[in-house]
Amino acid sequence: MYPIRAALLQTSVYDSKEKSLESVETAVREAARKAPDFICLPEMFCCPYRTEVFPAYAEEAGGHVWEFCSHLAKEYGVWLIAGSMPEKDRVGNIYNTSFVFDRQGNQAARCRKAHLFDVSIEGGQRFRESDTLSPGNEITVFDTEFGKMGLCICYDLRFPELIRLMALKGALAVFVPAAFNPTTGPAHWELLFRSRAVDNQIFMAGIAPARNPQGPYLSWGHSLAADPWGNIIGELGTDPGTLQVTFDLDMLQRVRRELPLLTQRRQDLYSLLPASPKPE
Amino acid sequence: MYPIRAALLQTSVYDSKEKSLESVETAVREAARKAPDFICLPEMFCCPYRTEVFPAYAEEAGGHVWEFCSHLAKEYGVWLIAGSMPEKDRVGNIYNTSFVFDRQGNQAARCRKAHLFDVSIEGGQRFRESDTLSPGNEITVFDTEFGKMGLCICYDLRFPELIRLMALKGALAVFVPAAFNPTTGPAHWELLFRSRAVDNQIFMAGIAPARNPQGPYLSWGHSLAADPWGNIIGELGTDPGTLQVTFDLDMLQRVRRELPLLTQRRQDLYSLLPASPKPE
Repeated sequence: MYPIRAALLQTSVYDSKEKSLESVETAVREAARKAPDFICLPEMFCCPYRTEVFPAYAEEAGGHVWEFCSHLAKEYGVWLIAGSMPEKDRVGNIYNTSFVFDRQGNQAARCRKAHLFDVSIEGGQRFRESDTLSPGNEITVFDTEFGKMGLCICYDLRFPELIRLMALKGALAVFVPAAFNPTTGPAHWELLFRSRAVDNQIFMAGIAPARNPQGPYLSWGHSLAADPWGNIIGELGTDPGTLQVTFDLDMLQRVRRELPLLTQRRQDLYSLLPASPKPE
Repeated sequence: MYPIRAALLQTSVYDSKEKSLESVETAVREAARKAPDFICLPEMFCCPYRTEVFPAYAEEAGGHVWEFCSHLAKEYGVWLIAGSMPEKDRVGNIYNTSFVFDRQGNQAARCRKAHLFDVSIEGGQRFRESDTLSPGNEITVFDTEFGKMGLCICYDLRFPELIRLMALKGALAVFVPAAFNPTTGPAHWELLFRSRAVDNQIFMAGIAPARNPQGPYLSWGHSLAADPWGNIIGELGTDPGTLQVTFDLDMLQRVRRELPLLTQRRQDLYSLLPASPKPE
């Protein structure tokens, strides 16, 4: 099987949307020189990670940022997993949304963050996305020439049922635009990516914004990828940068042959199924 | 809430069943001096870990080893999680079974390994438990004065649905008698215990037999416990020994308050339920 080459772009996010897009464009142009199959952007790559500004930065699908991403995918002939952006629907709901564009620049998938980050850690992080965001109601798996890929956003990663269902639907890799923080990052970032990879025998990739030391929300950064045996294939620090990784699908098949976890599930003991999504 | 004190006994297993029981008795007597609430034994604490010998070592519930464990629990007034032993039922099926005895020596729970270890790792471990064992068909959660506890055996740990369902049934800690090996141990042992603890916001304990360098199956040892934030509370090496740990239930409640994962599950998006067990 052909290996998948992915470039994870840990870009900087600015108050100026245009400046954020410029930094994305530069990083994409640079990354494209190595001809990756997938170029992946971070969560909220064009909007500061502050719930109160999401409405002002939000755009509809087909808007300026969407067009910008579609154009980049087509220009470089790559799959573009466009991290996430605040997306406004026609009635004014706002979502934390990841659009995926194929090599022709067509929208191939849309993932709206399903689990909103509403937490309050003693002496640590407090955040309440539901103040301004609505949750998505779909489990996102999309087809590519390599096979199926899964997609979810940041806090979604903490819910093993979601990733498990993607793997059961056939996802070979799951991409997670995400911005953990200095409280949850050191404690759980690698652990979650490695364990989802091992449990589901898939590749996992996390794409985070670079740390802005002046920002109100400190991104943990550390964009990374893990293989189906739980090895970290590569990982960045907190600075802007690009991680080029290769997903060896033969290795995935070998792991599944040797330790057939997905076929040894006791479906007579437990039942995990997607539930009926509400209309969005 | 009262903390739970548990002693994890990493005992040696011998070809002689009596010698194995003697090593258990000595270790229990020693551990009981610190008055733990739970004393936990390893997987197959009285039988070499070789599928072909399980039938010869197997006993029915109420037999010699069962009585021995019941007596120990009563004598020391502790909960005894009796690792596991080959258990024979009345029609001759053999299970990898963990019995739990309360402080009066009554059987409080029985867990038969549900996921049998049938794997073949290239250049590594090969094993086929289903050659001689039948699988259990129940998810084991039992009541104690501290609240509910979960129990599963070794390879069961690799199936996140099982531990998730225990947590949803109210388990505050899950005990896992287990014997990983030098292939899977370094790769996945800590990862699996830590991630199940973090995902389900529970305590996790793994109890392994000590390494016998002459044995045909090399146990990874490394008995350990992890807290709901994913910290390793304590861990042994490969030699015989006892790990005394404390499970701080106030900490568990604090973690669940700060990061309410169990209440933020999207049950409208996915449904995880126990399925109807077959009669055993």
